[in-house]
Amino acid sequence: MKISVDTKSLMDSLRKVLNIVSPRTTLPVLNNILLTADKTGLSLSTTDLEISIVTRLEANVSEEGEVTIPAKKFSQIIGTFTEGEVALESGSDMVTSIACGSAKFKIMGLNPTEFPRQTEFKEQQKIVFNKRELAGTLRKIGYAVSNDQTRIVLNGILMSIHDNSITMVATDGRRLALVEKVVNTSDKLVDGDIILPTKVVNELQKVMDGDGDVVIKLSESQASFDLDNTVITSKLIEGSYPNYRQVIPASFNNSVILPREKFNEILNRVALVLSETGASVKFKLETDLLTLSAASSEIGEAQEPVELSFQGDPVTISFNPVYLNDPLKNLECDDFTMRFNDEFKPVVVLGDEGFLYVIMPMRN
Amino acid sequence: MKISVDTKSLMDSLRKVLNIVSPRTTLPVLNNILLTADKTGLSLSTTDLEISIVTRLEANVSEEGEVTIPAKKFSQIIGTFTEGEVALESGSDMVTSIACGSAKFKIMGLNPTEFPRQTEFKEQQKIVFNKRELAGTLRKIGYAVSNDQTRIVLNGILMSIHDNSITMVATDGRRLALVEKVVNTSDKLVDGDIILPTKVVNELQKVMDGDGDVVIKLSESQASFDLDNTVITSKLIEGSYPNYRQVIPASFNNSVILPREKFNEILNRVALVLSETGASVKFKLETDLLTLSAASSEIGEAQEPVELSFQGDPVTISFNPVYLNDPLKNLECDDFTMRFNDEFKPVVVLGDEGFLYVIMPMRN
Repeated sequence: MKISVDTKSLMDSLRKVLNIVSPRTTLPVLNNILLTADKTGLSLSTTDLEISIVTRLEANVSEEGEVTIPAKKFSQIIGTFTEGEVALESGSDMVTSIACGSAKFKIMGLNPTEFPRQTEFKEQQKIVFNKRELAGTLRKIGYAVSNDQTRIVLNGILMSIHDNSITMVATDGRRLALVEKVVNTSDKLVDGDIILPTKVVNELQKVMDGDGDVVIKLSESQASFDLDNTVITSKLIEGSYPNYRQVIPASFNNSVILPREKFNEILNRVALVLSETGASVKFKLETDLLTLSAASSEIGEAQEPVELSFQGDPVTISFNPVYLNDPLKNLECDDFTMRFNDEFKPVVVLGDEGFLYVIMPMRN
Repeated sequence: MKISVDTKSLMDSLRKVLNIVSPRTTLPVLNNILLTADKTGLSLSTTDLEISIVTRLEANVSEEGEVTIPAKKFSQIIGTFTEGEVALESGSDMVTSIACGSAKFKIMGLNPTEFPRQTEFKEQQKIVFNKRELAGTLRKIGYAVSNDQTRIVLNGILMSIHDNSITMVATDGRRLALVEKVVNTSDKLVDGDIILPTKVVNELQKVMDGDGDVVIKLSESQASFDLDNTVITSKLIEGSYPNYRQVIPASFNNSVILPREKFNEILNRVALVLSETGASVKFKLETDLLTLSAASSEIGEAQEPVELSFQGDPVTISFNPVYLNDPLKNLECDDFTMRFNDEFKPVVVLGDEGFLYVIMPMRN
């Protein structure tokens, strides 16, 4: 391989593939980036066996070829170059020569034949999302994904396609977050469910900046995400996601509208007197007045009122403040709605378009 | 105690005293801030028994008194208030009521009589420094302080006063950094040595922003630093600092001038191929050319030239790159000077006014 490439473009591309390289892998070649130079330019590939990322960039290719280079060292070195072109050259000895300005490096790699190649991707369907919209959806529900390793299906986000509408769902059994969206397409989508692992969800949120589209392709066991010159491919979680519809109450006696940012500020302030993570904040609702309060024997007590419009019977409901802060800090709406029946039954939070959140009150 | 105080001023003052509050203390009252309200306003005090910080601010005092409040919780609560006045009230039950806007807190404290009071400070002399200059001096030498607990005198910065000149010194036995400064005063300073613990050196660097003066007062066993409305008092390290003058070579055969930032960039780039922290970068000096190079069996090799003016005999000297990066990244000069005899004898780095650094070459 013998190529030259713009320093800045190379660094930008390296940033896209670096995240999933783990220093704690047992397979040494997974610490490396696979560089592939062909007539069309240069591609950089990394994988952790669950997720693969390939990004392409322009390069002046004098000699085609493949080589692997330790990912972290390579990006540290390229990161010290501030401008101009980098020349990369490698032969059969797995050593890559790097030259930029008057700096010269020889970095040892591993045989590119050891680098795991992706299995064949049999595309079953394709969905186009707006990048910003998909990133927003993942952010609005991602915090609710379970990390309980005994229920693997909950360790990801459900993407359920039904009648050209897509519902994305996350739950850890104590709260549930979903966003439903009608897909704007003339094609009829095939109904079905897939579960995206948390890891690819987190990875997508890091790389999906700016406008433009992301093309999601689905196969039996994989999903791929095309963004600009980068393709992220992930395995799917196997298994059946629980029937999430049954935890959403069919009707409510009461509904209140609250200012999202102001309310969340008060919630978090009052919660400061709690000393344990599982403790609750009380919501005391009276006519046109909500009072939030909390207390712990170690720290003390706090209370603060919120004005609102409410005409129902007085009621006091307790919540884990973390479970309310999570959706409120990730939504974008000015006001949100809480719908409830009493202090025991599930409460629903509504806000941005298509968003729905279910939370169980705490018993005191 | 019954007072009201501007929210923003209170938060600014809290930031000044919070750093030294350690959550891992065995004496619970050290987690607390002592609030003292008297006719002149409010003071906030914290201590870790080695360092004490007291800061004063204006307050509307309706009733004088003292109270202690958990430092972290108190500042978290005050930090959520964005404007206006905070009302603080406490009685004999050690509980402080906090009110701001419509938010109300009651926070449990500990008896202020448990809070450790400072021992009497018998001022022996006083030195006025420019804040920015003292902060700069501490930054230029602080990294060289030893953390070897078997040589306590090296766990601090020597401040040596001699003939109205002050020399500040730090060394860990492998390199030595000092800044010498003539004090601009009409008084004759008393000659003598004190050793400031690292902890107060670090604390001072955090709070010494902006212009203005800091007044250093020295007693037999303590030093105090007056900055604006804040006084930091620290115990001194007892013992005799080693005779640092004897490690500075009396004469040199060679001297080269190098561009500080550019050279340090090259040094750090070349050092990227080293896999161990103790490994060295080679400096190969020939007529008008310096070549930096490094190699490790795990990663590979690197080399890069630096143009300079040099007419002496060719020589190759090896350095631990970390020990050169430390001073170079903290100096401000455009160019620095390296003075040396051969590849075995101590090398001296000169740069900013009054700065001197001694480093031992490494054997290969």
